[in-house]
Amino acid sequence: MNLRRVMLDVDKARSRPEMTEIAAAIEAAPGVEAVNITVTEIDVETVGMEVTVVGEQIDYVALVDAIDGTGAVVHSTDELVAGDRIVERVPRSR
Amino acid sequence: MNLRRVMLDVDKARSRPEMTEIAAAIEAAPGVEAVNITVTEIDVETVGMEVTVVGEQIDYVALVDAIDGTGAVVHSTDELVAGDRIVERVPRSR
Amino acid sequence: MNLRRVMLDVDKARSRPEMTEIAAAIEAAPGVEAVNITVTEIDVETVGMEVTVVGEQIDYVALVDAIDGTGAVVHSTDELVAGDRIVERVPRSR
Amino acid sequence: MNLRRVMLDVDKARSRPEMTEIAAAIEAAPGVEAVNITVTEIDVETVGMEVTVVGEQIDYVALVDAIDGTGAVVHSTDELVAGDRIVERVPRSR
Amino acid sequence: MNLRRVMLDVDKARSRPEMTEIAAAIEAAPGVEAVNITVTEIDVETVGMEVTVVGEQIDYVALVDAIDGTGAVVHSTDELVAGDRIVERVPRSR
Amino acid sequence: MNLRRVMLDVDKARSRPEMTEIAAAIEAAPGVEAVNITVTEIDVETVGMEVTVVGEQIDYVALVDAIDGTGAVVHSTDELVAGDRIVERVPRSR
Amino acid sequence: MNLRRVMLDVDKARSRPEMTEIAAAIEAAPGVEAVNITVTEIDVETVGMEVTVVGEQIDYVALVDAIDGTGAVVHSTDELVAGDRIVERVPRSR
Repeated sequence: MNLRRVMLDVDKARSRPEMTEIAAAIEAAPGVEAVNITVTEIDVETVGMEVTVVGEQIDYVALVDAIDGTGAVVHSTDELVAGDRIVERVPRSR
Repeated sequence: MNLRRVMLDVDKARSRPEMTEIAAAIEAAPGVEAVNITVTEIDVETVGMEVTVVGEQIDYVALVDAIDGTGAVVHSTDELVAGDRIVERVPRSR
Repeated sequence: MNLRRVMLDVDKARSRPEMTEIAAAIEAAPGVEAVNITVTEIDVETVGMEVTVVGEQIDYVALVDAIDGTGAVVHSTDELVAGDRIVERVPRSR
Repeated sequence: MNLRRVMLDVDKARSRPEMTEIAAAIEAAPGVEAVNITVTEIDVETVGMEVTVVGEQIDYVALVDAIDGTGAVVHSTDELVAGDRIVERVPRSR
Repeated sequence: MNLRRVMLDVDKARSRPEMTEIAAAIEAAPGVEAVNITVTEIDVETVGMEVTVVGEQIDYVALVDAIDGTGAVVHSTDELVAGDRIVERVPRSR
Repeated sequence: MNLRRVMLDVDKARSRPEMTEIAAAIEAAPGVEAVNITVTEIDVETVGMEVTVVGEQIDYVALVDAIDGTGAVVHSTDELVAGDRIVERVPRSR
Repeated sequence: MNLRRVMLDVDKARSRPEMTEIAAAIEAAPGVEAVNITVTEIDVETVGMEVTVVGEQIDYVALVDAIDGTGAVVHSTDELVAGDRIVERVPRSR
C-alpha cells in the first residue's frame, strides 16, 4: 500500500519538545516529503496539534515512532490517504 | 457500468482492525486507484469512518467484501459516481 | 433542445433496488455520460437520493422511465440545464 | 446593448407546462446559448423557479414572451449583465 | 486616474425606468465595458439595485449622469477600483 | 524592504473629499499600482472605508501623507505584505 | 529540516515599534522571502498581530530574534511547514 497522506492528533508538553524538533523528526521519517504542524489548543500544561504529513510510501510505523521519540504523544490517526494519488474526502450529505 | 467513486460509512472496533489494514484491503480491490479514510467519530468501543474510494471499473461487491474481510463493518453506501467521468452532486436549492 | 444536466429527487425502498442497479439503469439511458447518486436521507422504509445526470442530448423521458423501471420513484425534477454548454444557476440576491 | 445574462423569477402551475417545455422555449429565443432552470419552491398549486439565461445579444422581450407563451409567469427580473463580457456582481460590504 | 470598477447603490421606481434602459445607458458611458445590475430589494414603490461597472478609464461623472438620466437614483458609491489592474478588497481581520 | 500591499482603515466626512479624489491621490503615491476603496460604514457625518493598496516598493509614509492630504483620516494600518511576492495570511486555528 | 512557512502570534505596544519596522526586520532574517502582518486586535496599550512568514531554509531562531529585536513580543508559534513544498493543514473532521 502506497501511503500518501496521514493526519495525526498529537499533544506535547508546553516546555518540550520544541515544534521544530517534532517537524525535523517527522521530515526524517521514510517516505515523508513535507509536514504541516498546526497548533489547535494551548492549555496550562500541554499544546494540542494537528499534524498533516504528505509523501510517497510513507512508513506509518516509523512515522509514529519518530514522533514518540521526541517526547510528543500521538493520540489518534484522523485520516489516511493511500493509492496512486491523493484523494480528498467527499463529505456525507445526510 | 463504470463505477468511478464510492463513498461508504464504515465502523470498526477501537482495537482492531488498524486503519492501515483497511486502507490496504481497499487498495487491493479490483479497479481501486486511491482511497481516503477519514475518522468522523471516536466512541468508547468504536471508530466511525467515511471512506472515499476512486478508480475505474471499481468492483463494488469485491470492495465491500474487502472491507468486511478486515473485520470492519460497512453501514451504508452514501454516494456512487458512474460513467465516463466523475460528476459532482448539484445540491437541491429548495 | 440539447439537455445537458438533470437533477432529480428520487426515493427507493431500503431493501431494493440497489443503488448500483439505479446507477446502471441511468447510465444506459440515451445521452447520459455520467451520474452521481447521493443519499440525503435514510428512513425506516425508504432511502432519499439526489441524482445528478450529465450528458449530451439526454432523453428526459427515457431517463425517468429508466429510473422507474428499477422500482425507484422520481419525486421531482429540481434542475434542468440545456443549450450549448452547462450554465450554473446564479442565485437570487434579495 | 449586448445582453449576455438574465436571471428571472418564474412560476408555473404544478401540472403544466413541463420544465422541459420552458427550457425548450427559452433555448429557442434569439441570442440564447444556454439555460439553467432551478426549482426553489414547490407549493400546493405552483412551482417557483430561478431561470438563468446566458448568450450574446439576447433579445429580452422575445425571451420573456417565449416564457409567457408556455403558460409560465415571469414575476421579476433579478439580474441583468450586459457588455463585452460577463461581469459578476461585487456584493456590498456595509 | 484609471478607474476600472465602480459599485453603486441605485434605486428606481417599480414602473420605470426598465432595468434594460439603465443597463443600456450605463453601457454607453465613456470607458464602460460591461455592467451587472442585481436587484437586492423589491418594495411597494421602488426597486433597490447593486450596480457593478467595469471598464478602463471609466468617466465617473458621466456614469452617474447616465444613470440619473434614465430616472433612476444613485444613492451611494460603495466601491472604487483604480490603477493598472483590478485589485480585490482584503477584508479587515479584527 | 519591498512593501507590496497595505490595508488601511480610513474615514472621511460625508461631504468631502470625494472617493475619486482619495483614489487619485493614492494612485499617484510612489510604488502604487492599483487601489481598492470599499465603503464599510455610512454614518450621519462620516464614511468608513477599507483601502487596499498594491504595488512594488510602496512608499508607506508618502502613501499615508497622500491620503491625509485629501482631508481623509487614516485610523490604522490593518495589514502589511512585504518581500518578493504577496503572501496571504494563514489564519490561526485555535 | 527545510522550514518553509511559520505563523507567529506577535504583540507590540501601540506606540512602537512601527509595523513597517517589524516587517523590515523579518524580511532581513535568513531564508525569509515574504511576510504578511495582519492586525487581529487593537487594545488600549497593545496591538495583536498574526505574522505569516514564507521562504526556504528559514532560520527559526534568527526569525524570532529579529522580531524580539524590534521590541515586539512573540507569544506563540501557531504553525510550522517544513519539507520539499508547502503543505496545507487538513482539518480534523470529528
